[in-house]
Amino acid sequence: MHACLCMGRLQWKAVQGFSSDILEEGFDRYQGIIRDLPLGLGRNPRHNNSLGWLDSLSDDELAARLLFEQQDGQAATGSAGQTAGAASRDELAVADGTAGAGAAGRGKRCHLVRTIEVSVTSSDQSLNLETRESYTLDVASPAIVIQANSVFGALRALESLSQMLRRRRVPPGSDLEALVPAEAVWPAEDEEGEQGGAGSEGQGAAAAAGSAAEMPQRRRKKRKDKTVLLVEEVDIYDAPRFRYRGLLIDTARHFLPVSVIKAHLDAMTMVKMNVLHWHLTDDQSFPWETEELPELAQRGSFEPEAVYTPADIKEVVQYARFRGVRVIPELDTPGHTASWGKAYPELLTRCYDTAAAGAGEEPQPSDKLGPINPARNETYGFLWRLIREATRSFPDPYLHLGGDEVDHECWKSNPEVQAFMAAQKWGDDYAKLEGYYMQQVIQLAASAGRAPIVWQEAYDRGVKLPAGTRVQVWKWWKDEAQEARQARFAALSAERRMALERPGSAQAADVQLRLGSEPAPCAQGACMDAEQEAWKAELQAVTGDGYDAILSAPWYLNLGCYATDDWKKYYAVDPTDFPGTTEQKDRVLGGTACAWGEYIDAVNSINRIWPRAAAVAERLWSKDATDVDTAADRLADLRCRMLSRGIAAQSMGPGFCPGELTTRM
Amino acid sequence: MHACLCMGRLQWKAVQGFSSDILEEGFDRYQGIIRDLPLGLGRNPRHNNSLGWLDSLSDDELAARLLFEQQDGQAATGSAGQTAGAASRDELAVADGTAGAGAAGRGKRCHLVRTIEVSVTSSDQSLNLETRESYTLDVASPAIVIQANSVFGALRALESLSQMLRRRRVPPGSDLEALVPAEAVWPAEDEEGEQGGAGSEGQGAAAAAGSAAEMPQRRRKKRKDKTVLLVEEVDIYDAPRFRYRGLLIDTARHFLPVSVIKAHLDAMTMVKMNVLHWHLTDDQSFPWETEELPELAQRGSFEPEAVYTPADIKEVVQYARFRGVRVIPELDTPGHTASWGKAYPELLTRCYDTAAAGAGEEPQPSDKLGPINPARNETYGFLWRLIREATRSFPDPYLHLGGDEVDHECWKSNPEVQAFMAAQKWGDDYAKLEGYYMQQVIQLAASAGRAPIVWQEAYDRGVKLPAGTRVQVWKWWKDEAQEARQARFAALSAERRMALERPGSAQAADVQLRLGSEPAPCAQGACMDAEQEAWKAELQAVTGDGYDAILSAPWYLNLGCYATDDWKKYYAVDPTDFPGTTEQKDRVLGGTACAWGEYIDAVNSINRIWPRAAAVAERLWSKDATDVDTAADRLADLRCRMLSRGIAAQSMGPGFCPGELTTRM
Repeated sequence: MHACLCMGRLQWKAVQGFSSDILEEGFDRYQGIIRDLPLGLGRNPRHNNSLGWLDSLSDDELAARLLFEQQDGQAATGSAGQTAGAASRDELAVADGTAGAGAAGRGKRCHLVRTIEVSVTSSDQSLNLETRESYTLDVASPAIVIQANSVFGALRALESLSQMLRRRRVPPGSDLEALVPAEAVWPAEDEEGEQGGAGSEGQGAAAAAGSAAEMPQRRRKKRKDKTVLLVEEVDIYDAPRFRYRGLLIDTARHFLPVSVIKAHLDAMTMVKMNVLHWHLTDDQSFPWETEELPELAQRGSFEPEAVYTPADIKEVVQYARFRGVRVIPELDTPGHTASWGKAYPELLTRCYDTAAAGAGEEPQPSDKLGPINPARNETYGFLWRLIREATRSFPDPYLHLGGDEVDHECWKSNPEVQAFMAAQKWGDDYAKLEGYYMQQVIQLAASAGRAPIVWQEAYDRGVKLPAGTRVQVWKWWKDEAQEARQARFAALSAERRMALERPGSAQAADVQLRLGSEPAPCAQGACMDAEQEAWKAELQAVTGDGYDAILSAPWYLNLGCYATDDWKKYYAVDPTDFPGTTEQKDRVLGGTACAWGEYIDAVNSINRIWPRAAAVAERLWSKDATDVDTAADRLADLRCRMLSRGIAAQSMGPGFCPGELTTRM
Repeated sequence: MHACLCMGRLQWKAVQGFSSDILEEGFDRYQGIIRDLPLGLGRNPRHNNSLGWLDSLSDDELAARLLFEQQDGQAATGSAGQTAGAASRDELAVADGTAGAGAAGRGKRCHLVRTIEVSVTSSDQSLNLETRESYTLDVASPAIVIQANSVFGALRALESLSQMLRRRRVPPGSDLEALVPAEAVWPAEDEEGEQGGAGSEGQGAAAAAGSAAEMPQRRRKKRKDKTVLLVEEVDIYDAPRFRYRGLLIDTARHFLPVSVIKAHLDAMTMVKMNVLHWHLTDDQSFPWETEELPELAQRGSFEPEAVYTPADIKEVVQYARFRGVRVIPELDTPGHTASWGKAYPELLTRCYDTAAAGAGEEPQPSDKLGPINPARNETYGFLWRLIREATRSFPDPYLHLGGDEVDHECWKSNPEVQAFMAAQKWGDDYAKLEGYYMQQVIQLAASAGRAPIVWQEAYDRGVKLPAGTRVQVWKWWKDEAQEARQARFAALSAERRMALERPGSAQAADVQLRLGSEPAPCAQGACMDAEQEAWKAELQAVTGDGYDAILSAPWYLNLGCYATDDWKKYYAVDPTDFPGTTEQKDRVLGGTACAWGEYIDAVNSINRIWPRAAAVAERLWSKDATDVDTAADRLADLRCRMLSRGIAAQSMGPGFCPGELTTRM
């Protein structure tokens, strides 16, 4: 058991040799979070993280503990020096909790933390797959020392620290009061205006950080009692297991206000996710107001106000950057584009009414539009303009190009597309057409300086993707395209298969994949079955063919049910648990939890997704996170912390969060 | 197709010969609702209620329609008299939409509604099973006339009316503008302060109604355009199919702030539910602050602030009364009472550790407490005090006494209980003990002037209930107690069975009940299967034994899943679709949709339950509501209306609600 320290009037010091807007904003933000930390957070009897013992002690017991630590050479590793002098016999008796600390502990004080010192090695503030997020966090008296390679590692450390703190009441005249140095006592907040208190001086670099990060407007109840912030003495090295830890939001099935997107970003920060996969557009709406092609949103959005202006996008990107989160937009084509046709019907394929045409008759055009028309040159000029606009609004080096669920029937009916197929000598193989289209779009993205991500269909259809293209695996059931892909994989050269499935590879033979079919919606009584493992064969093939992979299949959070217990299934997923070589497994960049928007909008977007997405986040960050029971306790605590930060996450079971009546958004 | 009228500056008139606080408050409330009605509500292309055509017309088409109606003798049934004169040939051409209405319609005006006149027969404002909620609603020019037996019927009519209105923009210089009389034009709301407009004069009785009904605080966007409120000419008689249409909320698994309870009451009003079943306490917490036994809440609540004070309860009861909703509290005993033991451990049964005792050894008391101890006289004195307090706080003539899921193991282990059983000569039949206990509690309730409701176990266990006791049927699967009850039912006298299952009874023989087992939680991949029909056998038995029944089994809304499509199952349930006589079916008072609180708190209580609960409400109100497709359209519209009234109901599918960006809570 580690010593317990009192957080005094903190000085926030950035000791690196460059100035950082991100770090300044982070200081500002975490000062606010620490200042607003409610009493009682973490007080969960089942809570068994390292600080759990703090919550189970009465005030007197805690005072006795603290006193003991000040006198225990082992515990008192800090150099504060207020507690010189050897322990007398009486004092040790006090430390055992057998007597009040008051008299015995007179003159003794709990070890103070006075400073948070943050040291960052590199001034590179770019966000990409190479961004270093590891950190060390040394919590001791008189200083907490954070070291990181990048400012983003420092942010991760501050987040960890913020979750390690406990606020305790200091009852007047109590033993605890006698032990807490005046500098560490946060006064009651009876008065009007911003609360003062031990942590509020903010003398570090952050004082002037007028950043884009608005704190959510919350009605926090003023604390009527004196309090102390306690933190356990620890020394941590922490680093992510995967470099790509995403959340997909869908702003096409429903419009999500920027405030909701920011709340998701706040929640992502708490669980160290680093990619916001923004599924911007789809059949239902096109809410992206572009300067290049403004009619797309004018006609394709639900309402004139339900759009993201360039300023909105800039705001989201900036807000995300301050939290170490990349924003990767998805331009999903050639399917899922019905809303594009509101302004540009000629961009889409006109479906012909083949069923209605008699024998020998020419089918006539119907009023139905299908996927984007890949047979026209104008299509690619149009897409080029849109991709260029995307690169102007979204600085991330990646661009998601979609490519999922393309229906070939409309293409097959259209004479222009038929002529194109004939000219290319592709016969009836429309997968070739789909591949051709995706290759064109990938080239456009590359010309615009963007590395492509595609949904797995592009791979399944046999598109010749540039080496290293990132394939996002989302199907948890086995379908025809997947079988075709598996057949191709089986047809690999013998040497290559040898390499993948060599006898020494433990994973090669003994995996029995549980395949299944696409789940019926809940009306038929089924929830998503995350135990289906068709995605393992897909990861095996994708990485075996030399592509990078992002896993989403077992993590469709929108398919959640009663009891929110499905997070346990998400938690049980290990993204490298598929047959393959080390090289293959290294190609798994990480994963993305998906929150598709058919039944999710501003009303329930946060509470449907959080804290369940944290189960995915923890698997992607932590190497040894596998125990569901301890994770359940952490999730319950995290949910309460989210409420205290104005993030309306859903309950994980019966109970009550400290401050929930006053801090809820 | 009916004529379309313009709502002018409405005078609200109550013409009955008594003054009614409820009616005054209702006038005030519905004036606000009508005033705040957003543009575009109801504009759902799939929307096919009687007003759907209004939304599908362009401004010009609408103008032509209105003009046509003013000139069509059939349509112009009102006596406004502004539109005398026969239609010329040209004007009929306009009415066909083949020409602009501007020139042809000069001097013509849409028929005005100037008055809402409400006439109530009875001054009885008590809420109980006999409360009359039927009404007639005659929408015509110049007056809308509402007639009802009680003020609550009048409220139901006002609610119906409020959902029949459409607000349309009146573009300057348009044909529509020419057709709308100046009195019916709502001005733009550019200015600060409360909006003026046609509907805001409020000259009726309601102007001074400073009632308990606070309107939710919403940021409604000011309308920048002139608008008109249109309503279709109709004459409606409406009455409920069932007299008991409830929603259960659970404030023990999580605390629900009063504001959330009020939002539920607002939503219930919109779907004409009339019972709030308040599951006040349970194992997890006792949030009911009583004057009689204050320690129960002081020790049994989650937090000192997470309680309902007598003032809170009064506020809820009053808020409900103004909406025609009864508030029936549930004091669930003898099980589900762990939280009671925090303050009064002696009230509960001390469990003895029988497993640890060796052969011949006396089992020792454990630290575990079980259900309420039925063997002590003090128990009933305690319960009497609590029941009396309940009658002071809750005026409703019903009191729910719980009685579900009683575990007998602890009773079996306790020597005091064993001695009591021996004295009563009940052998090992602990169902007799449970029955004895329930009979005592029911007698206490009766002595306090309250009619009891019990969960079905009290019936299943063979408790001798007073004739007419209301039994709430909640188990959708078949269990042992149910089988025992069915056996008893089968042992009924031959004559009685003859009466129930006589050959002429169509329902008797051909019902194949689909029985099942209790569903696994969603972690195991299952949702609640509302198709299980064990409840039908239960209804058959309960009503056959002469008790009144309330159905809840197929309506456990908290067990919802992705896609919210499960409402279709709820909608498919007909509470009288069980084998039995007319007399038996008449004993079905109605039903209660249940929103158990394990995973529901203030964050998601509204969006988990609404609008799905409306499916239950519609089945309980409407005799001929069976078509799921049209219900889906109504639900989607209702959801948007709820948002516009500050009730954060969940989306029913992709799309956008008019005004959702500005009216959300």
